[in-house]
Amino acid sequence: MKPTIMLQPGERLDDLMAEGLQIIQSDDVFCFSMDAVLLARFCSVPGRGEMLDLCTGNGVVPLLLTTRTKARIRGVEIQERLYEMATRNVALNGLSEQLEMIRGDLRDIHQTLGYGRFDAVTVNPPYLPVTTGEQNVNHHLAAARHEIYCTLEDVVAACSRLVRTGGKVAMVHRPSRLIDIVLLMRKYKLEPKRMRFVHPRVNEEANMVLIEASKDGKPELRMLPPLVVYSSGETYTDEIYRIYNGGNERDGGTQPG
Amino acid sequence: MKPTIMLQPGERLDDLMAEGLQIIQSDDVFCFSMDAVLLARFCSVPGRGEMLDLCTGNGVVPLLLTTRTKARIRGVEIQERLYEMATRNVALNGLSEQLEMIRGDLRDIHQTLGYGRFDAVTVNPPYLPVTTGEQNVNHHLAAARHEIYCTLEDVVAACSRLVRTGGKVAMVHRPSRLIDIVLLMRKYKLEPKRMRFVHPRVNEEANMVLIEASKDGKPELRMLPPLVVYSSGETYTDEIYRIYNGGNERDGGTQPG
Repeated sequence: MKPTIMLQPGERLDDLMAEGLQIIQSDDVFCFSMDAVLLARFCSVPGRGEMLDLCTGNGVVPLLLTTRTKARIRGVEIQERLYEMATRNVALNGLSEQLEMIRGDLRDIHQTLGYGRFDAVTVNPPYLPVTTGEQNVNHHLAAARHEIYCTLEDVVAACSRLVRTGGKVAMVHRPSRLIDIVLLMRKYKLEPKRMRFVHPRVNEEANMVLIEASKDGKPELRMLPPLVVYSSGETYTDEIYRIYNGGNERDGGTQPG
Repeated sequence: MKPTIMLQPGERLDDLMAEGLQIIQSDDVFCFSMDAVLLARFCSVPGRGEMLDLCTGNGVVPLLLTTRTKARIRGVEIQERLYEMATRNVALNGLSEQLEMIRGDLRDIHQTLGYGRFDAVTVNPPYLPVTTGEQNVNHHLAAARHEIYCTLEDVVAACSRLVRTGGKVAMVHRPSRLIDIVLLMRKYKLEPKRMRFVHPRVNEEANMVLIEASKDGKPELRMLPPLVVYSSGETYTDEIYRIYNGGNERDGGTQPG
């Protein structure tokens, strides 16, 4: 039996389409997008152990990860409003034994959480440097898009400090920044091992990249098959349907009819 | 009317399937593979000006480039046996006004050709470090696969020395080495701008990457649609048919029936 959770003005309750999970979001401060769902499906997960999600927002990635692993998962969010929403999302889904939300700054969170502690770290960081693109006047929405609280280098450095040797760091980002990402990963001893590009249609350029690195890993990259979102018009491909329906290692995925 | 060209023992004459071009090759020393054809189609070409192909082998890439550009094209090959074969391929196709083969070492060829001279440079280098994989006992074949005459860093450094500011460097390589490639490109002021992965089938990992960089370019990568080789079984996709049939900017490509 799930506890009663109060919604704040402007908030709504959405179905996460994975094992009955629900999520509070708000167009005014944060809604998850496909990026988060793909990241939560792409990343390697330990069966047990400890996982961490940085820039967690309303906690969507940790929530989805609970369908794939029994690991203890923490989410870190710097904005009070979103941290508070993420905390209610944990309670709403009755997941407080497995999930914990922490309000903190990824630039110094290792002082609380410890160096090299996590088996796997995920992050869906803001994509745009503060100097590019028009910034949303809504500060919450701007912070999700622009590197206001942390630069790409801050993010990569934090992942490297927090993950254990041999542990995994998975990130979703824009292909346009790929070269910077892999250079920073090398700089911080995170060796890219698996990469996957997301193309809206099979004959279109990629608009997202999923990348997983191993701390102190040996250089050898696997380039996975392209992940294509739409098969024709606005119809999702079978793979996207499977991902959105919570297909995972445990239940083998649900193939749409 | 084409001149009479002598074939040496073990050599054969193959059809390049592009505007009537023919090519001498030999299983004993060098045969071109799909990599070269894809590189010659992928790279940006200036309408006129000067192009250079490093590690040119029997000259397959420069030969194919003549169907796309009026630029003067030079090919550099270190092995005497292959240089000589490439020279006969130029004569065989009556292309000596546009194409010139040079025997030389890419590590010092700028002393002859000059710094920053070329509008575009292409290279299909050996893929394997000398320390990995079993080396072919045939020295010619080993040199095409393994970094015997030049390392990846030698290749990238040479491209950077030879291309002009704003000029293009296009390379085909294995995805497993992508991180090293882009790091070296950045080191030598070659900014990756276009990338394309080649997947045998749409649901398989990539086994080739095409990458084009701009000398002193601004960081901003475009990730092109995946290039898929087989549609089903051993049947090529329409795009591969078009490429093999010499489809190009000039004639718009020949679509197979």
